[in-house]
Amino acid sequence: MNYQAPLQDMLFAMQELAGLSSVSALPGFEDYDLDTAQAVMQESAKFCAGVVAPLNVGGDKDPSSFKDGAVTTAPGFKEAYAQFTQGGWQGVIHPTEFGGQGFPKLIATPCIEMLHAASLSFALCPMLTDGAIEALLVAGSDELKRKFVGKLISGQWTGTMNLTEPQAGSDLAAVRSTAQPQADGSYKVFGTKIFITYGEHDMAENIIHLVLARVPGAPEGVKGISLFLVPKLMVGDDGALGARNDVACVSIEHKLGIKASPTAVLQFGDQGGAVGYVVGQENRGLEYMFIMMNAARFAVGMQGIAVADRAYQKAVRFAHDRAQSRDLAGSDGPVSIINHPDVKRMLLTMRAHVEGTRALAYVAAAASDAAHHAADELTRKNNQAVYEYLVPVVKGFATEMSVEMTSLGVQVHGGMGYIEETGAAQHFRDARILTIYEGTTAIQANDIVGRKTLRDKGAVAKALCAQIALTEQDLSARGNDDCMAMLNALKQGRLAMEDAVEFIVANGKSQPKTVYAGAVNYLKLVGVVLCGWQMARAMLVAQDKLESDPAFFVAKLITARFYAESVLTQATGLAQSICLGGNTTNRMAIELF
Amino acid sequence: MNYQAPLQDMLFAMQELAGLSSVSALPGFEDYDLDTAQAVMQESAKFCAGVVAPLNVGGDKDPSSFKDGAVTTAPGFKEAYAQFTQGGWQGVIHPTEFGGQGFPKLIATPCIEMLHAASLSFALCPMLTDGAIEALLVAGSDELKRKFVGKLISGQWTGTMNLTEPQAGSDLAAVRSTAQPQADGSYKVFGTKIFITYGEHDMAENIIHLVLARVPGAPEGVKGISLFLVPKLMVGDDGALGARNDVACVSIEHKLGIKASPTAVLQFGDQGGAVGYVVGQENRGLEYMFIMMNAARFAVGMQGIAVADRAYQKAVRFAHDRAQSRDLAGSDGPVSIINHPDVKRMLLTMRAHVEGTRALAYVAAAASDAAHHAADELTRKNNQAVYEYLVPVVKGFATEMSVEMTSLGVQVHGGMGYIEETGAAQHFRDARILTIYEGTTAIQANDIVGRKTLRDKGAVAKALCAQIALTEQDLSARGNDDCMAMLNALKQGRLAMEDAVEFIVANGKSQPKTVYAGAVNYLKLVGVVLCGWQMARAMLVAQDKLESDPAFFVAKLITARFYAESVLTQATGLAQSICLGGNTTNRMAIELF
Repeated sequence: MNYQAPLQDMLFAMQELAGLSSVSALPGFEDYDLDTAQAVMQESAKFCAGVVAPLNVGGDKDPSSFKDGAVTTAPGFKEAYAQFTQGGWQGVIHPTEFGGQGFPKLIATPCIEMLHAASLSFALCPMLTDGAIEALLVAGSDELKRKFVGKLISGQWTGTMNLTEPQAGSDLAAVRSTAQPQADGSYKVFGTKIFITYGEHDMAENIIHLVLARVPGAPEGVKGISLFLVPKLMVGDDGALGARNDVACVSIEHKLGIKASPTAVLQFGDQGGAVGYVVGQENRGLEYMFIMMNAARFAVGMQGIAVADRAYQKAVRFAHDRAQSRDLAGSDGPVSIINHPDVKRMLLTMRAHVEGTRALAYVAAAASDAAHHAADELTRKNNQAVYEYLVPVVKGFATEMSVEMTSLGVQVHGGMGYIEETGAAQHFRDARILTIYEGTTAIQANDIVGRKTLRDKGAVAKALCAQIALTEQDLSARGNDDCMAMLNALKQGRLAMEDAVEFIVANGKSQPKTVYAGAVNYLKLVGVVLCGWQMARAMLVAQDKLESDPAFFVAKLITARFYAESVLTQATGLAQSICLGGNTTNRMAIELF
Repeated sequence: MNYQAPLQDMLFAMQELAGLSSVSALPGFEDYDLDTAQAVMQESAKFCAGVVAPLNVGGDKDPSSFKDGAVTTAPGFKEAYAQFTQGGWQGVIHPTEFGGQGFPKLIATPCIEMLHAASLSFALCPMLTDGAIEALLVAGSDELKRKFVGKLISGQWTGTMNLTEPQAGSDLAAVRSTAQPQADGSYKVFGTKIFITYGEHDMAENIIHLVLARVPGAPEGVKGISLFLVPKLMVGDDGALGARNDVACVSIEHKLGIKASPTAVLQFGDQGGAVGYVVGQENRGLEYMFIMMNAARFAVGMQGIAVADRAYQKAVRFAHDRAQSRDLAGSDGPVSIINHPDVKRMLLTMRAHVEGTRALAYVAAAASDAAHHAADELTRKNNQAVYEYLVPVVKGFATEMSVEMTSLGVQVHGGMGYIEETGAAQHFRDARILTIYEGTTAIQANDIVGRKTLRDKGAVAKALCAQIALTEQDLSARGNDDCMAMLNALKQGRLAMEDAVEFIVANGKSQPKTVYAGAVNYLKLVGVVLCGWQMARAMLVAQDKLESDPAFFVAKLITARFYAESVLTQATGLAQSICLGGNTTNRMAIELF
């Protein structure tokens, strides 16, 4: 039940791996140094552990419910959300101009991680609001910004993203909702949207829906999609709330997990048309969505890391508490199961993946900060390219690993893990959505193959490999046993990644189906190698600082070596699958299944 | 919702890989030839698809419930169970002497697979009855056999296995239940047992509990455990049911899955002692349990294959039906998602694992038949050794893969997979117990490392590797592209397995913790390689018979090659983890987690 934010590991990754001091040195971030970071993270940890985390189990047992068009959220959620807004937590990363706190993404990210670890279901509401804010800041008119952004950043109102329709899941080209222009410049929006997270709820006084729809005469496919803002309650020029708009919640879904988070079916325009305002220009909706999506996908990756860490913490506690069987080396009676080699292996597997993906995600966050704030354009451009390469990895790899790690969390609990009262199963159920929403793993994989590797002929990927080779030199120079074990595994991983990149670049145009059949394995391979690289860098720091905090740095060193020997060793096999297996997949005619 | 037993693939594995004709040639099995096998499997398929499979979703939504000490099973279960007993299905594998049908395990196994695929929750009841029958046949007195075995084989009564107590899960040494001998030769049994599958229900008129307990003065630990038969209702000498025995169901568990299967807490002896009869001799209970356990563990492995196949069938149907996005090679509009490379990859991954584990399990079943029925002792002994080596692989590997494959089944469904109404999530939840009960994966892994590899210095493992090398020669002699791809992967896998065996044999005594930290990876490695071996043998047959049924054999050929390129390629990395990683796991002091 208890969750403690891993502040020490978070600060380690921020300072030693993601370069917090460099981020603090960026123009505009001078006020956000280590002290500020620590202060805000400590407050966030207190709020998440004290207010949000205790609601997580109850929210699963007694989830959000639907009656007569209204949603009642799980017990305590409304009150916790009120505290969340009072603390200013919605605004951490958003511009001071609209009442936010303007923190770098590198500092906001651990705060977001904690909130998700405390409760994925709760944190989804602010996450979707972040998306709406981002969309309006990117593309909204000054008028829309003035009326809506401040209230969203304060958390007084919440936001949603309305993409999916029954016939249009991953395929946004199939969106059929329509928007009719009105004489006053507004639109009337019609259509059915499904899977709308917090599409209806009772935690805030208004909900601002961002809705993809087509205007009359729009081109077919994704080039004819526009983005509209549709408030649940109309908003006057003075910001006062008015009448109910023509958007209704028809039902909410009965899901495998994240049950406290209401997933709504929304009906727009059954009473003559929902009043909407175009965001940016007509027919450019998809473009705006893609800008927001980098942020949203990164956030879902953080959900994966968060829930895996929470499951890890729970499993460690259970493994300490549960006595069962003698020690393999001999003991008088049963010992805590954490002494048994396979339990240790499972816990180290969870720990290594959490630390590796956290480090990579924080490195990505720092790249995003530099992409937006660096003084010179080249630095901004290079960092943007790295960030865009890493987003599908953080989203795809960290969420896939979260399903496996929460499953290990169940396994550590044995039979008790299968009983719902224990709580381990909830993390497993909750995590299972993460590889699906905000673009399935295949969508992330297609993104990293197509837009992020083929388009630049592997330039960013190869540049990352070149940096890994530098780390290999550092490991080699140390020459000690741990560094040599890491060097061996990291080099093997880097060479595998280079092989895969070469194969993709060489064959992506001529044999697209063969190459894309290996896309998910490529995404996993890159995740395995880049997280392994961070663990290698962590090992070097740990050796340097060993004496300053032996417990922390010895654990880091061992975890890094475990990652090398038990995770990086998967890289060569993944590369073989990518380079050899695609054509075989392709050969299988669909009638043969 | 629909399930069709994969009769053609089952018969393929039985005939071409497991040697059905050799099994039929064994003394006592002369009447059980291909025709008999086909006839019983067709009937079983009809019953499973028509009667049991339709109950699976309802059993999850409206599970077994508990009130005032009684359990009401899910809607339709009682009626289906009556049909099950009327069809004589409980007796398929059991001796004709007690009213069974005496089929070889090789023919009974596909029938059991179908029943589990139709409904894991339903099939658990007969599975536990099988265990009770086996225990009584192995160790029960003639008196106990006469009174109980016939009624269990007819299915009129059902059986349970009572091992677990709150403080004794995997650790049976900690069992505290007691049994006091009475003047009439019976015992009074006292204690609390948890996690008792079908420990109470309304489908049969009596329940025969097999209970582990200690007699006064018994040695400590596992050498002081005895096995008792405790009927729910007393049974007269004439077989008539009498008064209620002193065993009560206190509650049933609220579980992640297999919800229709009631998991009971049973209280023995609160009213003065439950009447029990010792099975075999005092203090030899664990030994009897181990004999039964091979059968029970094998059956749980079949559950994994079954639920993975059911999830596969569902995913294939969805992937054909769901249209989304254009074809990568160009199309006018959205195509069925089965055309998309990653969906194909997911489906092939599921298919390859199901076919590979099925083949290995059937090979193991045939070994069990030869172990019991071969004319000469050496053949029996060798087959018994192979069977005992394979049981933890079938149990451990097929169940671990079932969790991954049912997860892929959810993924193929995208967002719909996360909605409970779709049904994909149920398979995922149901499968999650399989790596836990009847011995967790770690228990299976410790078994294959300790009893099955270290004890004979790797003799059985090496003999299997030598057989694989013969298959490599066959592949090499063919020389065609598919065979060479398979050869390359199989050889890599076999060498990896040999490396691991050598490492384990060399270090098992001197560094047990280091070796056992790699136990689960060794189990996975052996599973990957031995299933790959079966797929290699299948490829050779498929090439020979290609023209007799092009659709089936082309699919088999492609699936085998996919297994080579996408699954066997994991072997080297697993061997590296086993040989390199154990010491690192060992270094991590428990306080550092």
